[in-house]
Amino acid sequence: MSVLGIDLGGTKIAASLFSETGKQLSRDVVALEQRTGKEVGYLITDLALKSMRNSESPVTSIGVSVPGIARTKTGTVWAPNIGGWEDYPIVQELEAIAGNVPVSIDSDRACCMLGELWQGNARGCKDAIYLAVGTGIGAGVLIDGRILRGAHDIAGSIGWMALDKPFQNKYIACGCFEYYASGDGIAKLTRELLAMDSEYVGALRDYPFDRLSARHVFDAYEKGDALAIRVFDECIQYWGMAVANLISIFNPEKIIFGGGVFGPALKFLNSIQDEARKWAQPISMTHVKFEPSGLHGDAAIYGAGFLALQKMSQQ
Amino acid sequence: MSVLGIDLGGTKIAASLFSETGKQLSRDVVALEQRTGKEVGYLITDLALKSMRNSESPVTSIGVSVPGIARTKTGTVWAPNIGGWEDYPIVQELEAIAGNVPVSIDSDRACCMLGELWQGNARGCKDAIYLAVGTGIGAGVLIDGRILRGAHDIAGSIGWMALDKPFQNKYIACGCFEYYASGDGIAKLTRELLAMDSEYVGALRDYPFDRLSARHVFDAYEKGDALAIRVFDECIQYWGMAVANLISIFNPEKIIFGGGVFGPALKFLNSIQDEARKWAQPISMTHVKFEPSGLHGDAAIYGAGFLALQKMSQQ
Repeated sequence: MSVLGIDLGGTKIAASLFSETGKQLSRDVVALEQRTGKEVGYLITDLALKSMRNSESPVTSIGVSVPGIARTKTGTVWAPNIGGWEDYPIVQELEAIAGNVPVSIDSDRACCMLGELWQGNARGCKDAIYLAVGTGIGAGVLIDGRILRGAHDIAGSIGWMALDKPFQNKYIACGCFEYYASGDGIAKLTRELLAMDSEYVGALRDYPFDRLSARHVFDAYEKGDALAIRVFDECIQYWGMAVANLISIFNPEKIIFGGGVFGPALKFLNSIQDEARKWAQPISMTHVKFEPSGLHGDAAIYGAGFLALQKMSQQ
Repeated sequence: MSVLGIDLGGTKIAASLFSETGKQLSRDVVALEQRTGKEVGYLITDLALKSMRNSESPVTSIGVSVPGIARTKTGTVWAPNIGGWEDYPIVQELEAIAGNVPVSIDSDRACCMLGELWQGNARGCKDAIYLAVGTGIGAGVLIDGRILRGAHDIAGSIGWMALDKPFQNKYIACGCFEYYASGDGIAKLTRELLAMDSEYVGALRDYPFDRLSARHVFDAYEKGDALAIRVFDECIQYWGMAVANLISIFNPEKIIFGGGVFGPALKFLNSIQDEARKWAQPISMTHVKFEPSGLHGDAAIYGAGFLALQKMSQQ
């Protein structure tokens, strides 16, 4: 037997068959290409059918990672970046094509945590946190072996963490932590500093101001650019404070750093740990380990596979 | 049958028998009077024996609320304010006198949460948070009907929440949030402002500077004192930010406000909600209810009783 993991991302859908022991047996990818609503649903069900047909052993469970809120009670999804996915019935659609095979969904951050638990750097953990820093920021939280969901499946929205008073209106759209320390935040903060510093003539002036991205700031940092260093000094403070708060609140065994920004920001892990140590509950701080993702871009699809496996073993 | 709840506090120990339906059948209290180490242990076992002897029906389970870390795996307690209680084997001592009756322990903040769940304002909840603001600050967190413990029973240490950068050395002893917004913090902040404001001649000058307490600041606030208003405006910001962070992270149904400060600070609940609304994940914010403790000073002892009842039903 095998299970099917599907990772619905912002630009593509990936599907992989997994063995019970976590071996990735196949991998299919299809681009979203601006599709919306039911078109995305068809793409997913087609991909699932194809994977199931190509599987050498019967597929006994399907798990889906979604970029938004996975409403586990109704089996519907709110995905802000896919048009028409305010409350999309993806579980029902997959069940309709999959026969008696159970279908489970969870948010991408929860799936990344589950992926790391199954085959990544959280193996053997009961209490761990996957910190996802990419375009946005979120956390998948494992508590005594179970995923933290909250009353309405919105738990782990740590991009909204309040870290610097007083409140400023610029936090309204995405929250204070995400405003400063996400991939978008890094670019935004750099533009703010560039706009204020007319005397700066460094590497960051070489990039088009409006299309400046976190990647450019990382590149400038590598060249020793003073403004880029200033930006990351700020970010390290925010990452350290946010991680400290997670440590004081959850007393986890591990924090796993993932997402596009970690990635290149993994070089700051020691500095983030130093910053967190100032703020966090001191006993919890001594017990926690900081680790990079072991699965990188594959954490969510592994997690979707593990979600499927867990569902099966519950039945 | 009945269960026995014991609440070990900072200055006294209380013991109550409870019926299965949550009726408080008795209440005994004994003062700690500077006792330390084994003397405190004797006091607890004596009180337990007395309660069990006086019970009209057999006592089938014992729960204890402790002011510190309840190490549930070893049954030992770290209570910073009781001398010699770095790792005190209270479960073993109670088991020795109680025969085959099971003994459970948990932290006071966890017990307060359980008390509210059983007989207070969190009845019927699966996801709720008890925010305890007294001399210090902590939180009891209920997730899908279970208490959040963490890897080493230190979860919920929210007094350490980082809320205002940059880090200042004065946060080292107790954490940023507790530094500003606990009972001690209110007094400390007031003293800081009094020391800086030589022109202030209001009601707060009537109290001895070194023994100024939160209670005095609340009294001055009632008289319209400008400095007291300033202190609570600060606190409301911190309480609002911290509560917002709990809402974004946990997506709870309810936040229950308890401890000595809530109490008189319950009059600020609407202002705290307004502040939290600015920062928190907006969907989670619309779903959460803010409520005062329904059990006040009895939350922990009810929780100890419920802990006992839960243990019994697991066996």
